[in-house]
Amino acid sequence: MAHVSIIGTGNMGAAIANLVTKGGNTVETFTSSDVAKPVTGEIVVLAVPHAAVAGIIAERAGQLAGKVVVDITNPVDFATFDDLVVPADSSAAAGIASALPTARVVKAFNTNFAGTLVAGTNGTEPTTVLIAGDDADAKALLAGVVTAAGLRAVDAGALKRARELESLGFLQIGLAAAEKVSWTGGFAVVA
Amino acid sequence: MAHVSIIGTGNMGAAIANLVTKGGNTVETFTSSDVAKPVTGEIVVLAVPHAAVAGIIAERAGQLAGKVVVDITNPVDFATFDDLVVPADSSAAAGIASALPTARVVKAFNTNFAGTLVAGTNGTEPTTVLIAGDDADAKALLAGVVTAAGLRAVDAGALKRARELESLGFLQIGLAAAEKVSWTGGFAVVA
Repeated sequence: MAHVSIIGTGNMGAAIANLVTKGGNTVETFTSSDVAKPVTGEIVVLAVPHAAVAGIIAERAGQLAGKVVVDITNPVDFATFDDLVVPADSSAAAGIASALPTARVVKAFNTNFAGTLVAGTNGTEPTTVLIAGDDADAKALLAGVVTAAGLRAVDAGALKRARELESLGFLQIGLAAAEKVSWTGGFAVVA
Repeated sequence: MAHVSIIGTGNMGAAIANLVTKGGNTVETFTSSDVAKPVTGEIVVLAVPHAAVAGIIAERAGQLAGKVVVDITNPVDFATFDDLVVPADSSAAAGIASALPTARVVKAFNTNFAGTLVAGTNGTEPTTVLIAGDDADAKALLAGVVTAAGLRAVDAGALKRARELESLGFLQIGLAAAEKVSWTGGFAVVA
């Protein structure tokens, strides 16, 4: 059984909390005013917008040492919808890993719309959570939480692949914003 | 009715030729030894590996002026499977557009495995061809060829979005090479 801390109570935070408990794992959630409450989970999900991550790291870097830190962000430039705000040859996840050198950072959930996490399906396919990271045990721990809830987890490779996952998240959000795909659909993975 | 020239007779060239004729449009195909045979289609599909594109441009730049030139390549570094061979802030399609300034370059088909183009489905979803380009008429002409064959076409935006499409193609090929998705599956688009 895994204990999961989720910082952020928006659509994605709520959907991930639902997934965790559905699989029989335990969850604690944090709003932005819970600064004084320490995280106790071995997995900590940063379920906040990309712009809010630096503040959380500033507040909690010590608490996050050794933890599996899950970056779900899509660092889209929402003013233009035409670029990411991270360097083209890097990723938000790489930035978090650099800021938290002792944490085991994984990229996950950024290619899943919240509705598909709650439903467990995307179209007729099981919802698939793509997970990238450099620590195999960290990825396996998170994958176990995902599969316990009845969803699929796919190891997408090293944390370097967060670049492609963020590109996919950006493309998917852009297509949904343009009404080319549904906010309850998007890219499904056909195994 | 559109007339489509397809340069390259590999799996992808054959699958796209099949798609064109299935929709009642006409096709002419070119092998690497057909250098002296001019292209006559208003759409020209470069169905060759990325490394072969420069040679075709050198041979046929004049013939491609004004044409809808379809770039289907995934410029993956197949020696490492860890990067693309184009700059991170650009794309193979942008390179082709730069080399063929009077052609109307679109990116398409690079996110579709050949089997899904032939089947017309990916899992239970209709196969969706994502098309990026700066010329709306060019995209619409190609989309018409795709939808005539019973597949879906989605306008993925400006040619700048080729970067995300190539990133998606790279991710999908990597997952298939690692046996995480099938070569007859991959990313399906749920509208």
